[in-house]
Amino acid sequence: MSKRGFASDNAATIHPDVLEAIAEANTGHAFGYGHDALTQRVEGLFKELFGRDARAFLVFNGSAANVLSLRAACRPWEAVICAETAHMNVDECGAPEAIAGVKLLTVEGVDGKLTPELIGRRIERIGDEHAVQPGVVSLAQCTELGTVYKLAELDAIAGQARTHGLVVHVDGARLANAAAALEASLTELTAEVDILSFGGTKNGLLAGEAVVILNPSLAEGFEYLRKQSLQLASKMRFLAAQFEALLTDELWLHTARHANLMAARLAELVGELPGLTITRPVETNAVFATVPREAIEVLRRQFDFYVWDEARDEVRWMCSWDTTEEDVERFATAVGHALS
Amino acid sequence: MSKRGFASDNAATIHPDVLEAIAEANTGHAFGYGHDALTQRVEGLFKELFGRDARAFLVFNGSAANVLSLRAACRPWEAVICAETAHMNVDECGAPEAIAGVKLLTVEGVDGKLTPELIGRRIERIGDEHAVQPGVVSLAQCTELGTVYKLAELDAIAGQARTHGLVVHVDGARLANAAAALEASLTELTAEVDILSFGGTKNGLLAGEAVVILNPSLAEGFEYLRKQSLQLASKMRFLAAQFEALLTDELWLHTARHANLMAARLAELVGELPGLTITRPVETNAVFATVPREAIEVLRRQFDFYVWDEARDEVRWMCSWDTTEEDVERFATAVGHALS
Amino acid sequence: MSKRGFASDNAATIHPDVLEAIAEANTGHAFGYGHDALTQRVEGLFKELFGRDARAFLVFNGSAANVLSLRAACRPWEAVICAETAHMNVDECGAPEAIAGVKLLTVEGVDGKLTPELIGRRIERIGDEHAVQPGVVSLAQCTELGTVYKLAELDAIAGQARTHGLVVHVDGARLANAAAALEASLTELTAEVDILSFGGTKNGLLAGEAVVILNPSLAEGFEYLRKQSLQLASKMRFLAAQFEALLTDELWLHTARHANLMAARLAELVGELPGLTITRPVETNAVFATVPREAIEVLRRQFDFYVWDEARDEVRWMCSWDTTEEDVERFATAVGHALS
Amino acid sequence: MSKRGFASDNAATIHPDVLEAIAEANTGHAFGYGHDALTQRVEGLFKELFGRDARAFLVFNGSAANVLSLRAACRPWEAVICAETAHMNVDECGAPEAIAGVKLLTVEGVDGKLTPELIGRRIERIGDEHAVQPGVVSLAQCTELGTVYKLAELDAIAGQARTHGLVVHVDGARLANAAAALEASLTELTAEVDILSFGGTKNGLLAGEAVVILNPSLAEGFEYLRKQSLQLASKMRFLAAQFEALLTDELWLHTARHANLMAARLAELVGELPGLTITRPVETNAVFATVPREAIEVLRRQFDFYVWDEARDEVRWMCSWDTTEEDVERFATAVGHALS
Repeated sequence: MSKRGFASDNAATIHPDVLEAIAEANTGHAFGYGHDALTQRVEGLFKELFGRDARAFLVFNGSAANVLSLRAACRPWEAVICAETAHMNVDECGAPEAIAGVKLLTVEGVDGKLTPELIGRRIERIGDEHAVQPGVVSLAQCTELGTVYKLAELDAIAGQARTHGLVVHVDGARLANAAAALEASLTELTAEVDILSFGGTKNGLLAGEAVVILNPSLAEGFEYLRKQSLQLASKMRFLAAQFEALLTDELWLHTARHANLMAARLAELVGELPGLTITRPVETNAVFATVPREAIEVLRRQFDFYVWDEARDEVRWMCSWDTTEEDVERFATAVGHALS
Repeated sequence: MSKRGFASDNAATIHPDVLEAIAEANTGHAFGYGHDALTQRVEGLFKELFGRDARAFLVFNGSAANVLSLRAACRPWEAVICAETAHMNVDECGAPEAIAGVKLLTVEGVDGKLTPELIGRRIERIGDEHAVQPGVVSLAQCTELGTVYKLAELDAIAGQARTHGLVVHVDGARLANAAAALEASLTELTAEVDILSFGGTKNGLLAGEAVVILNPSLAEGFEYLRKQSLQLASKMRFLAAQFEALLTDELWLHTARHANLMAARLAELVGELPGLTITRPVETNAVFATVPREAIEVLRRQFDFYVWDEARDEVRWMCSWDTTEEDVERFATAVGHALS
Repeated sequence: MSKRGFASDNAATIHPDVLEAIAEANTGHAFGYGHDALTQRVEGLFKELFGRDARAFLVFNGSAANVLSLRAACRPWEAVICAETAHMNVDECGAPEAIAGVKLLTVEGVDGKLTPELIGRRIERIGDEHAVQPGVVSLAQCTELGTVYKLAELDAIAGQARTHGLVVHVDGARLANAAAALEASLTELTAEVDILSFGGTKNGLLAGEAVVILNPSLAEGFEYLRKQSLQLASKMRFLAAQFEALLTDELWLHTARHANLMAARLAELVGELPGLTITRPVETNAVFATVPREAIEVLRRQFDFYVWDEARDEVRWMCSWDTTEEDVERFATAVGHALS
Repeated sequence: MSKRGFASDNAATIHPDVLEAIAEANTGHAFGYGHDALTQRVEGLFKELFGRDARAFLVFNGSAANVLSLRAACRPWEAVICAETAHMNVDECGAPEAIAGVKLLTVEGVDGKLTPELIGRRIERIGDEHAVQPGVVSLAQCTELGTVYKLAELDAIAGQARTHGLVVHVDGARLANAAAALEASLTELTAEVDILSFGGTKNGLLAGEAVVILNPSLAEGFEYLRKQSLQLASKMRFLAAQFEALLTDELWLHTARHANLMAARLAELVGELPGLTITRPVETNAVFATVPREAIEVLRRQFDFYVWDEARDEVRWMCSWDTTEEDVERFATAVGHALS
């Protein structure tokens, strides 16, 4: 039996339905670069899920989905308001700046979340040519800390963005987990969103994300941006096949719901243990907790996971579509031992 | 039976060994981003094929492999000498300029090939601060026109590059086809090369290319460049699995040799037909020919392929690893009918 | 008496009226960055000369005026059609690519000039996501070879540009010389132009050029582009003062007309000399000629000038606003001696 | 008598010696782009002031001096640690990101100053390919808040930088004022600095700054970077003439000392007024203070100055080389009235 850990949802396997879909698509020749029937079907599926104006562009990974969104949304002097903890700020090796030429205006969120009040602090110096002008609000749903924006919270942010003429971008590398958590449809979740990254890789794909453009004005020329930004797959049908599997019969929702459930179960099992404190609301598929350093060391000999904040001994335990209840129980038991 | 055409080697399927390797790798959890055992094995395979100093970095596609190579090789004021027909000049939507900030100094090659004489014309204005300084010679092996550089030709170019302190880059999206054509090993083919793109997608992979760095000084910091350039796969093991299959037991060579053979066979079958002229030496897996426009129209109703040069009625017929002798014969027959 | 040569019009002095204007502006404090009365007056002068919709943005130098124009006119996937000899292609050290991220699509002009036919060759692959899309036609008036586009020629190019939705940019580093040559007003010269660089430095200023935007849609956000592109002068009033002098009482035209006249005189004096061939139409302030290498060497010991094309022994002799008839005669005599 | 305010030292006039130097240089022809005798003399003067390894490159403005320094010092994946208040972070319209492609890692300084402790917080994730790597520490001397780093403070920061392999950059737009404040020579002030921006415009020039490179490895290719970044003046002699005046007989020091003195005098005159609180140490030529909003309004009707922080009613009063004692007294009197 192969080992499963809690390092990341991208340490997980490919969902068997997805792999099967690749195999099924592997017959005969097909025009490259998305000019094939399968890709067109998938574009239709995205319209079903996100609304008929939605346009989906498949890309290889999540950093690309984010950076391409910024390239589409920002004029050269426009900047992006985001949380200090945003993936694009801390985990994309400066790609927004180096590849999109865009400055990020960060605020310290609470549990990774923006608020209108925080955003408001960076809406300043409008019309002052010495300062970049805020052009985009980018929020992660769910956040990098596993928390979710409630629909009313999204509403408030989107309203503020509209007032100030800002584009709303959602980093949805784990949008499925947020949808599962909120029991909301994707259209509800993105009702006032202009452009988003929709994650597949963390939810059972081999590799594949989508930039979904809901505001048609941002779609102009996007096919060139994708190609120029090194993200146009030649054998596109195999990206499309993965998404067809994911988007059919709500596979995306089932896998995300399961991952969330596993995290909830883990939190339940370890939450009361002495010496361990859960540090963030467990709303999707991550459990953040502080644990004594010795216990961390003991556990990492047995299981893969990341220490999120060395200074505080805060760990992140991530569940994925293929985490089993048994995995969780075995791990919780190990945590109990390490703490005793 | 599914349809096969002659549009591109990226219209082909995934080789069954490659798909199987993906399935086999799909068990248990693995650290992402290449920190897994499979990726390490593949790095070892690249050393076996390209020499022990070789370092291989897997990326998603060929444009990326090229542009990342340029980012690694060029200082901001350095430019790249390449053929007018180079993929990076005509088929990457300005990515070298927009993403790498690099100017291309093009020359009109013959059948897509550079010569020392042609390169020499762009080695000029050295030390003149008003002009970009030539920093890289980039050649495609095989070229976009299916032709190959003989070892002596490579030697001459590399010698010139050394004399002028230029980095030698090879766009090897189809390097396997060149190796097959020349019956040369990959180390022979790249003996004096500093950095190259090694293609997988056109040779049976789902998606995957490698930047292979032979000059160690160019590898410094490349892991950051890859991440920043949106090319670090999180589930890297599935890129690695594909390459493990491709690089094991010379699969890459067998597939490439087969594709070349099919092109040779096609050329043989159609080369003498009245009204058709083969326009480029058929050295790898492409056949270029001029054909009367009416015949092109007739043929395109039955088979996929590209018109390369509308003005001249020049077509490109591309064979791939999965082209069968029957495909070729059926197509050649159709060409015969269309011309008669 | 100080030495004057024929190297470049930027080897010349500051026109005394311009220097005096700087001195006159040098009193009391003024808000920086163009928020001063003098700058506003100059913006008014530009409207008088280029039409009331014209908006002028002062910058430091000609490369900047060109590159900022491209930043304003191009979306990321758009490219610029220009002559192989264009300043932005050969004399800006790759700034269009490195700073604006823009690819240049060059054509071999005749005496530095584009034609609709030449431009048409680069209007291709429209809608093909693999190729940059032509977005701008950039022509130099006068050209780097001293030639001018007649009004009918401009008309033809602009008509073609309109048909294909291309922006028309003029590199007018020496637009004054073209206006003098054509005896045309600046509005006539730029009737169908969207954006242009208007030169001052080569026409008697200490330093200063203007980006003049005639198509209002290109002016949106330009103040940010100027600042971000490192071209916003803090003590703007001293750039403005120079332009006020230049644009008042047609000083710009008198100086340009004089420089043109001096070149015509020089051409007249040397044009018939045996062994010397004038190689380009002498239409503005430059004389291009082929001269035996020995004569070049003799002359360069006495006078500064550039060898334009080493291979052909083609020299460029440039007259400027401060070239005197005596300078020309003395030089022509020296040429005569060197050739005899 | 012309009006003088307290808005900025770039609202001031050109120093008469500087203007005279321009006039004196305005004779005869000179090769452009710095290939003239005057520019070479000035390069010598910089060596006298900054040490014989110093190389000075004149540019047009301060944003350019900063951004070019970053282009010279950073590889693509390297980031710059600086204060939140740094000019490059808040007043260059995103040029570091858009033009240099560089991410800034900001810390909240105290009165605009970095400390080793603050810097240390951003030296993290070394070797982690997902994160930009700190490559440069950039500090302003004096800071944007008018404060200065003591030599021991510089020492501590430079020591830390050396330990971690970071380049030390100084934004010295007002380095002269810091030198005057510390009574230190420029070599003492920059003993452990690798590259710096040396300001002229705020200290009596028409326009002109210098990038001074003390670490020779950073000078390689800088002439290309300057040209490519749109900062190579064609009539360079007139930038050089200004610097020759400024660097001769310590004019730079006299002017800076005077400006500092005027600020000290102003602080003395208004510091005890009821309702006014001086908010930053007055160490150079700026006085920061909080003043009741009504008083600000009254004063701004009479004098130009900036409100630095609207929220706190904090103003900035800037003295310059041409501020007179009478100006200061008149202003102080007005402040007194406005507060009474």
